Amino acid sequence: MVKVAILGATGYAALELIKILLAHPEVEITALTTRQEGSPHVQTIHPSLHGRLDLTCDNLTTDEICQKADVVFCALPHKASMEVIPQLLAGGCKVVDLSADYRLNDPGVYEQWYGEVHTDPTRLGNTVYGLPEIWSDRIPGSELVANPGCYTSTSILGLAPLIAGGHIEPTGIFIDAKSGISGAGRGPKLTTLYPECNESVAAYSVGRHRHTPEINQILSEVGGCQVEVVFTPHLMPMDRGILCSMYTKLKSAITEDELLDVMRKYYSGKPFVRIVEHLPATKDVTGSNFCDITVRRVGDNAIIFSCTDNLIKGAAGVAVQNFNLVCGFEETMGLLP
Amino acid sequence: MVKVAILGATGYAALELIKILLAHPEVEITALTTRQEGSPHVQTIHPSLHGRLDLTCDNLTTDEICQKADVVFCALPHKASMEVIPQLLAGGCKVVDLSADYRLNDPGVYEQWYGEVHTDPTRLGNTVYGLPEIWSDRIPGSELVANPGCYTSTSILGLAPLIAGGHIEPTGIFIDAKSGISGAGRGPKLTTLYPECNESVAAYSVGRHRHTPEINQILSEVGGCQVEVVFTPHLMPMDRGILCSMYTKLKSAITEDELLDVMRKYYSGKPFVRIVEHLPATKDVTGSNFCDITVRRVGDNAIIFSCTDNLIKGAAGVAVQNFNLVCGFEETMGLLP
Amino acid sequence: MVKVAILGATGYAALELIKILLAHPEVEITALTTRQEGSPHVQTIHPSLHGRLDLTCDNLTTDEICQKADVVFCALPHKASMEVIPQLLAGGCKVVDLSADYRLNDPGVYEQWYGEVHTDPTRLGNTVYGLPEIWSDRIPGSELVANPGCYTSTSILGLAPLIAGGHIEPTGIFIDAKSGISGAGRGPKLTTLYPECNESVAAYSVGRHRHTPEINQILSEVGGCQVEVVFTPHLMPMDRGILCSMYTKLKSAITEDELLDVMRKYYSGKPFVRIVEHLPATKDVTGSNFCDITVRRVGDNAIIFSCTDNLIKGAAGVAVQNFNLVCGFEETMGLLP
Amino acid sequence: MVKVAILGATGYAALELIKILLAHPEVEITALTTRQEGSPHVQTIHPSLHGRLDLTCDNLTTDEICQKADVVFCALPHKASMEVIPQLLAGGCKVVDLSADYRLNDPGVYEQWYGEVHTDPTRLGNTVYGLPEIWSDRIPGSELVANPGCYTSTSILGLAPLIAGGHIEPTGIFIDAKSGISGAGRGPKLTTLYPECNESVAAYSVGRHRHTPEINQILSEVGGCQVEVVFTPHLMPMDRGILCSMYTKLKSAITEDELLDVMRKYYSGKPFVRIVEHLPATKDVTGSNFCDITVRRVGDNAIIFSCTDNLIKGAAGVAVQNFNLVCGFEETMGLLP
Repeated sequence: MVKVAILGATGYAALELIKILLAHPEVEITALTTRQEGSPHVQTIHPSLHGRLDLTCDNLTTDEICQKADVVFCALPHKASMEVIPQLLAGGCKVVDLSADYRLNDPGVYEQWYGEVHTDPTRLGNTVYGLPEIWSDRIPGSELVANPGCYTSTSILGLAPLIAGGHIEPTGIFIDAKSGISGAGRGPKLTTLYPECNESVAAYSVGRHRHTPEINQILSEVGGCQVEVVFTPHLMPMDRGILCSMYTKLKSAITEDELLDVMRKYYSGKPFVRIVEHLPATKDVTGSNFCDITVRRVGDNAIIFSCTDNLIKGAAGVAVQNFNLVCGFEETMGLLP
Repeated sequence: MVKVAILGATGYAALELIKILLAHPEVEITALTTRQEGSPHVQTIHPSLHGRLDLTCDNLTTDEICQKADVVFCALPHKASMEVIPQLLAGGCKVVDLSADYRLNDPGVYEQWYGEVHTDPTRLGNTVYGLPEIWSDRIPGSELVANPGCYTSTSILGLAPLIAGGHIEPTGIFIDAKSGISGAGRGPKLTTLYPECNESVAAYSVGRHRHTPEINQILSEVGGCQVEVVFTPHLMPMDRGILCSMYTKLKSAITEDELLDVMRKYYSGKPFVRIVEHLPATKDVTGSNFCDITVRRVGDNAIIFSCTDNLIKGAAGVAVQNFNLVCGFEETMGLLP
Repeated sequence: MVKVAILGATGYAALELIKILLAHPEVEITALTTRQEGSPHVQTIHPSLHGRLDLTCDNLTTDEICQKADVVFCALPHKASMEVIPQLLAGGCKVVDLSADYRLNDPGVYEQWYGEVHTDPTRLGNTVYGLPEIWSDRIPGSELVANPGCYTSTSILGLAPLIAGGHIEPTGIFIDAKSGISGAGRGPKLTTLYPECNESVAAYSVGRHRHTPEINQILSEVGGCQVEVVFTPHLMPMDRGILCSMYTKLKSAITEDELLDVMRKYYSGKPFVRIVEHLPATKDVTGSNFCDITVRRVGDNAIIFSCTDNLIKGAAGVAVQNFNLVCGFEETMGLLP
Repeated sequence: MVKVAILGATGYAALELIKILLAHPEVEITALTTRQEGSPHVQTIHPSLHGRLDLTCDNLTTDEICQKADVVFCALPHKASMEVIPQLLAGGCKVVDLSADYRLNDPGVYEQWYGEVHTDPTRLGNTVYGLPEIWSDRIPGSELVANPGCYTSTSILGLAPLIAGGHIEPTGIFIDAKSGISGAGRGPKLTTLYPECNESVAAYSVGRHRHTPEINQILSEVGGCQVEVVFTPHLMPMDRGILCSMYTKLKSAITEDELLDVMRKYYSGKPFVRIVEHLPATKDVTGSNFCDITVRRVGDNAIIFSCTDNLIKGAAGVAVQNFNLVCGFEETMGLLP
């Protein structure tokens, strides 16, 4: 059994992570952390875990964490992550980081988008990006994996096949992303109060959402050319789910069926990507680690629809997928419902 | 035109109040207050008011308020209300108070349920309770009206006819109340975050909700005997609306049709109470000042269903109804859609 | 008082129309029709109207309608509309048609998109399109007005200023439209059952939604050139509201502030379009006849956000706006809350 | 591996059943039935199953079913169930029936509440009621198990400990039940359209819901006396979940802590009932087979709150629990997340 700690155990993604790991045959959860006072029991924080996990959430030092765990899932906010991860690695832990701190390659880009100087810049450019459908070969054996953002995974998985195949223009790609509210976190804010979000939809962070450089970086590497997307996120009145509707220009004549075939071949053997013929709904992937994708040709445009559960394939599920690959387990272990 | 100020203009009930008053033919809104810094424009606080009201929300003294307004709607939290209302009255304003500060008759009961010593106890027992369907004769000309709580109005309007007529037992009444989330206010709290409330229903404050003594006080006066209800509120995943399902014991043989007739007669000539034969849904009253009520006889029990829009008939609408009566206007002015 | 009939009174838009007309100072509703058997009372069909309108919904002939009404709001499905409208006009009624039957100019285009031969082709090309913010001068005195589609109004109002000013490319415009479920009508269908729609979002009718030719036709006339949009609608888990996020290419260097100014000037004096600086939310226009619009410049692209209440500005509200213009009333009569 | 067929595979409970059984280590799903024409693939009916189960839904005879399956889950409507179950049993299948057809003991009561003469009356009174927390000893080895109704399980599990212990009055129990919309099934109906249910709450079937005699029958057996509940269901705007708020009179002095202890002892060793101290929310049990229960003492009343996921513990989950007991597997197999 692998001993596992979860840092920042009070959030929504952490709850999903705990639920997945409780059912994982090779995992024992040994530590949960929070900055909240008083070591609350995890079932006080997450009543759905009542009777299922007898642990408190403690304010542990990195030393204490390293004594308790072999692998650490870090669900801290950005900046907080890079403050503890070097010590966790030095202490012998492997780390799957759910924050944004190790996703970008370039410290300058990090500083530009996150407004912080990166304190671990050398490791930044040398950390594997944990999107197993794209680079499963890079992940096994890594000591640190940067888990992708939820919008990022959903967008990249939808675009990668046609970018890699050179079927669409690499610039002028419009991503209209629609997310459930849980993506905004569990901290009380006016903008995510129920009566503010319910019965309403609106865009936010237009032209400046932090997942933009992440999408561009990965797709540029996938396509071998400079990819630039215009990313526009929206909040939907629902708990969970992301749908990315992506508007792209075809580079040459190709039918809708051929586009679907390109996608199917690209993800051949990948257990969590499903190329579907219908227009996918977020509900179809809720609670699962699947990413459902399809494409429609309209005139000279390819419109790609990609959807995930933002807390599973967009966070906790892919984290466990990365964990499995890091530890040498079957990629799907604990993840197929 | 009556000059009107709204204290605590940033909340949900205040927004509805502003919208109603903007369409009221005899009102000019002259002042809005908030404790927020920087005098934000009301359309920054409430984007739905864009272009409709050119006022900032200011941190005004009671003197300044009295210079600007003839009538004040006080939408402050309890305790804050009783700190300013004596000065407003002394300054010549009439006041409709949406807080709980002047609803109860007994300072001891106030202290017991609100945990505060009442600082204006003399006025407490002498303030008219603003439920116009019950005591419309007491409201005209009052300088201060205590606007009822949202659960309170909905419960009392449903129960009053059968209590007044002596048709049901005055004790052992179970009120199962179901409210939309806006009733919990606009302050950011974990418990009213979208992902906490959505796709879920739960009870809260069982046996200790502050609207309980208010319901008992008014119904006891209506019935001429000690009425005691067991009040159990629940939060529903919706913005607005209250449904009270009220379980009572009949005192004698009476048919369902006769019960409906008792209700119809009790509210004869009351424009905002509708005795209906179908089971009312909160959606039927959303955005209106109506209270829809019906009754079913099941065995020796009368089950009464009463519903309102908690922000309108439960707060802003009845406040304007009281304002109309205080000022000598038609009771329905500005309130019939 | 103008006597008004509403054909097809059982749907969601018809309910909003009735509510608006009940508060309209110059209107008397004299007839409601339905194909349902048994002449149900309107308050049985729409319980929210309980006690407010004492009319049954009848299966009336066009002769009977003409005897009862001066102006007819036709909320029938397409095809059913063009079967009765010629007779209503012949009988002396003026008609505001909420269906799609008289919106397009070209019978061939109608047949292509609606799969029906148009039975009143001469009138088709000569009917005024009822978007008062664009052509208010054409509407007064018309005997027949084609009320625009909900997606159509929202899209056109957002795009028209920049198309008219020649600031954006007229082709390659991607409209990502997000609508509440009421837009799909009140007929029971699997796809609009609560558990199918709730907690989910998906696109539908990609590349073949019938509002596409309508948008292209009107914007081409506005711009004086061939405008072609790629229109992609999505269903959101909410009752009401449409947000169109529209991705366009700028033709020349122009700042975001200048784009906003172009919009403000274009709609100067138009009471129901609000050019806002924040990102508009559908909630801000729910229940109102407003269309809130803003624009963001991202690189060489202009992203336009436009939102309406699909049942008001997208249907019943603009219908009354057209009615007011047809009858010579103030454009805002009965429509300003 | 046990070969399993699911009859009526197109509904919401059937989908959950398929998902649970796909993860069950001892089950192979071999047949799915529907009355729909054309043998649709299950992933067309339930897109969330894409790629997970390669079966069509066929209109099979009972003979064909018996050839394909050892155990049949019957998710047909009432009446349809009793038409096929005798043949399935005669053909050697064991059956878990999710319909109401074999839940009541008395054919007369069945006829009174369901309006149909029962066609298999002998078996009716001799079929085990599949509520394993109450009668787990009766279920093992049964050839036919009557799976309880969703409201029924939730109500009975909450009330049984205090009824069995004689702590509450057996009559005058008010059950205020709140259910998500999926409980109303997947057939298109006006009453369960999204815009009818969303942002609204209302009671239905007051005094005549068919789960009432089922609750009374079981609790009377549990208590050894005539138990009579007044059952009032409400539809909530959410997909899944039932909360029963149950208002009862205490028979003698007993503290809240003692009441909780009675509950804990009653369910000692039962893996799916969790006696909690907080007020349970339906969200805490969504997707799980748990029933969360608590009690509050208010005056001389005990108010019991019990919640389940109506599709899991209320239908598919308890069906698999019964299946496990029938087949001699561990009760929790495939059910602990």
